[in-house]
Amino acid sequence: MLTYTFENRGKKSYYQYLYEQMKSDILEGKLAAGAKLPSKRSFAKHLNLSVMTIENAYGQLLVEGYITSVEKKGYYVADITGQVQILQKEPYQILEKGADRDKSAAGKDGCGRQQDFGKRNEGTKEPLADFASNQVSSRHFPLSTWSKLMRRVLADQGTEILKTGSHQGLYALREAIARHLYRFRGMAVSPEQIVIGAGTEYLYHLLIQLLGRGRIYGIENPGYRKLAQIYDRNDVQFRYLELDEEGLSLEALRRSEVQVVHTSPSHHFPTGIVMPIKRRRELLAWAAEDDRYIIEDDYDCEFRFSGLPIPTLQSIDTRGKVIYLNTFSKTLTPSVRISYMVLPDSLLELYRGKLGFYACTVSNFEQYTLEVFLREGYFEKHINRMRNYYRGKRDTVIRAIRSGALKKRIKVLEEDAGLHFLIRIDTELSDEEVKERLAGQGIRMKCLTDYSYCHNPFYTHMFVVNYSGVEEERLPEAMERLQKCI
Amino acid sequence: MLTYTFENRGKKSYYQYLYEQMKSDILEGKLAAGAKLPSKRSFAKHLNLSVMTIENAYGQLLVEGYITSVEKKGYYVADITGQVQILQKEPYQILEKGADRDKSAAGKDGCGRQQDFGKRNEGTKEPLADFASNQVSSRHFPLSTWSKLMRRVLADQGTEILKTGSHQGLYALREAIARHLYRFRGMAVSPEQIVIGAGTEYLYHLLIQLLGRGRIYGIENPGYRKLAQIYDRNDVQFRYLELDEEGLSLEALRRSEVQVVHTSPSHHFPTGIVMPIKRRRELLAWAAEDDRYIIEDDYDCEFRFSGLPIPTLQSIDTRGKVIYLNTFSKTLTPSVRISYMVLPDSLLELYRGKLGFYACTVSNFEQYTLEVFLREGYFEKHINRMRNYYRGKRDTVIRAIRSGALKKRIKVLEEDAGLHFLIRIDTELSDEEVKERLAGQGIRMKCLTDYSYCHNPFYTHMFVVNYSGVEEERLPEAMERLQKCI
Repeated sequence: MLTYTFENRGKKSYYQYLYEQMKSDILEGKLAAGAKLPSKRSFAKHLNLSVMTIENAYGQLLVEGYITSVEKKGYYVADITGQVQILQKEPYQILEKGADRDKSAAGKDGCGRQQDFGKRNEGTKEPLADFASNQVSSRHFPLSTWSKLMRRVLADQGTEILKTGSHQGLYALREAIARHLYRFRGMAVSPEQIVIGAGTEYLYHLLIQLLGRGRIYGIENPGYRKLAQIYDRNDVQFRYLELDEEGLSLEALRRSEVQVVHTSPSHHFPTGIVMPIKRRRELLAWAAEDDRYIIEDDYDCEFRFSGLPIPTLQSIDTRGKVIYLNTFSKTLTPSVRISYMVLPDSLLELYRGKLGFYACTVSNFEQYTLEVFLREGYFEKHINRMRNYYRGKRDTVIRAIRSGALKKRIKVLEEDAGLHFLIRIDTELSDEEVKERLAGQGIRMKCLTDYSYCHNPFYTHMFVVNYSGVEEERLPEAMERLQKCI
Repeated sequence: MLTYTFENRGKKSYYQYLYEQMKSDILEGKLAAGAKLPSKRSFAKHLNLSVMTIENAYGQLLVEGYITSVEKKGYYVADITGQVQILQKEPYQILEKGADRDKSAAGKDGCGRQQDFGKRNEGTKEPLADFASNQVSSRHFPLSTWSKLMRRVLADQGTEILKTGSHQGLYALREAIARHLYRFRGMAVSPEQIVIGAGTEYLYHLLIQLLGRGRIYGIENPGYRKLAQIYDRNDVQFRYLELDEEGLSLEALRRSEVQVVHTSPSHHFPTGIVMPIKRRRELLAWAAEDDRYIIEDDYDCEFRFSGLPIPTLQSIDTRGKVIYLNTFSKTLTPSVRISYMVLPDSLLELYRGKLGFYACTVSNFEQYTLEVFLREGYFEKHINRMRNYYRGKRDTVIRAIRSGALKKRIKVLEEDAGLHFLIRIDTELSDEEVKERLAGQGIRMKCLTDYSYCHNPFYTHMFVVNYSGVEEERLPEAMERLQKCI
């Protein structure tokens, strides 16, 4: 029987390593098109692995089209002639390297004070411009207003803030969020549907428990890489799903056995694709066909700069298939760890029965403060101000690119929404070389393939410009250096 | 083949229901001693359940001695003549009913404002004395000091509090915790070993991911019932382990296949047993024999009233087998959701590699405030004051019981430490009748069997007196009513 050894798998999981080995053998022709693969059970026994590991590896190969399955017969190596996907690098390495949308989780080793809330490093190590992190700048956080409200909450609420409340979070805050969603996103949501948690990552822990570990979860590729880590650590099967120019490919989704899919239709990260309404409806129709769910992550919806906002999946979902997620870490500051999800009515009873015993993970005190911040209009004011600020910043970057010497070499893509856009650089250099040269000039930037599980030649020379954390006055200098590099 | 149907399982999990049905059949003799049980795989196929479900049911029956396993042969019904354990009630019902050590998770449905941080219900519904909840009273939380420190943190730290930090939590806070553990528990712990999280429940989510879902976890029975819920929702196999008069039974532990055991040796909940040093060493020896771990939950160690404190397992562990857990929700107020764990050095690298990408779930702001609170001695002052306060309260309750008419009917047990003790009531009434009568008098109290997975006749007529949340001035009246009831 087909045999693989695992001595060299390093830090990779077994399924990951097995998947890579098999894929590489298929690409190299060692496993020929049409060859029958061992059954999952016998292969598991043979390799001394769990059936689930084999399932995961086969599942991923299946989704990517490297193998096919014939009902009641088994798995076969697909004919990959003409296929473009080549495994460029070790995916786990990519994962561990970062590519995280939410830099707040970075603190890579946490084993020394210097990793912590230390003074800002003003030394030579600080990059001139960090386009790789899309952490919002905390410089614009309205700290004095926030402090004022905190003091008021302490004075007004007194010992009320010590009372324990609902596991779903402070009701008044949920009311304020519901009002905000109505005004801002046209979503009709009741406070009863809202669950507040200490960060989106924590909400994923709840969702996995709510929807069940038995389902297969889908992740957009390229996409938010941390999701794969969360699913992996929670022993949940997941599949990477390809995108086309309209976002998540329905074809890829249908080819997979995915039952719960994660998507950011309003502004996909990192491609910036805004999913057209037709695709949104198709996605909802897919979910309605079976016991399927869509997790809609609307993480930077507040920063749409032009055109009409497209309705959220949640607001056009009539079948109770969409779980809507959003966070205040992106709009306020990453150190305020308050995220929320909106559950469809159909899942509320299950949620309360299964997970209602968990305590809410966000401190009362910050819930009260955020409630006043929302209720009294400070939040709206803040995002309006930030939208203008970011628009100005984005315009500066784009102007710099489109004028001068860079304009012939760089094309700007998908710049209508959110805190990042893409550029395609016309260069002979490889993406890695570009990044290295930029780093030498104090500019951190990631390329699209950093966010991809598999290499797609279409993505080459595409770079992700996260401009939100870069100081405006440094932009001209950064653009000059960028020009030098390419 | 042996057949069970599941129409009547209600809200129980399959494994739970199957376990109960089989146990009941064994007790009633329908399954006779010596009878061979179907193999796990064939039984799973026959009942259309997963093998894991059967494994869980068999595993629990095995631990409890209802069945035995013979290597390479299979499972057999045990000879239970003389066994005392009878399933008294439906365990799931108990779980859902509460029995939660941490009331902050209550908010049972969360679907209305009245569930929330509403004004205190001064109406007739409020019990006179709630001995069933062991939530600490927030009345004694030093709110003015806390507020003062919060304001100072805002003023002193400025935008520092907006910076994201280590996933393990604010380093300065971890230093302060390490100093506290050294002074207070004689534990030599480095800040690098400490992980801060938004509540103990969240830390369990991390621990399951860290140690792996493949292991079997052990829970003390009787014990902290919420643990079973957490393990269940995370699809982790767990076994209930019996106690003897010295706490967790090593015999039960060795009979089980448990690899990770949860214990509160310093003050077991709810029996109040303090595990003697000999048993602690035996437990450590058990862990050292194999790839096993002990989760030591030291949740109310701060409130030991007499005698010398016994060293924590963590501090006498030389093999890196103990994970120490503690929380500030118990010593400060449940609405401050800050807990922490101390990992052995042996697990640090694994933790950082596997889970280092998660953001810390506690807001910076509260971490900074707690840090000052600890560093400047407010915490020590607070627990000293609270220890005196609770000692006084406990003495009042015990005095009331030991004097007057109650003394002949009630025996006080295990009262040296912590915020609860046990009483044995000499009565003809059943435990349920006692509780009902008490409830009629506005007194909530739980019996030991409420915290037990299986009934043990030794536990009958034992009640748990959680006195921490009861107002002192109401105690005399409560004692009078108690007398009336029994």
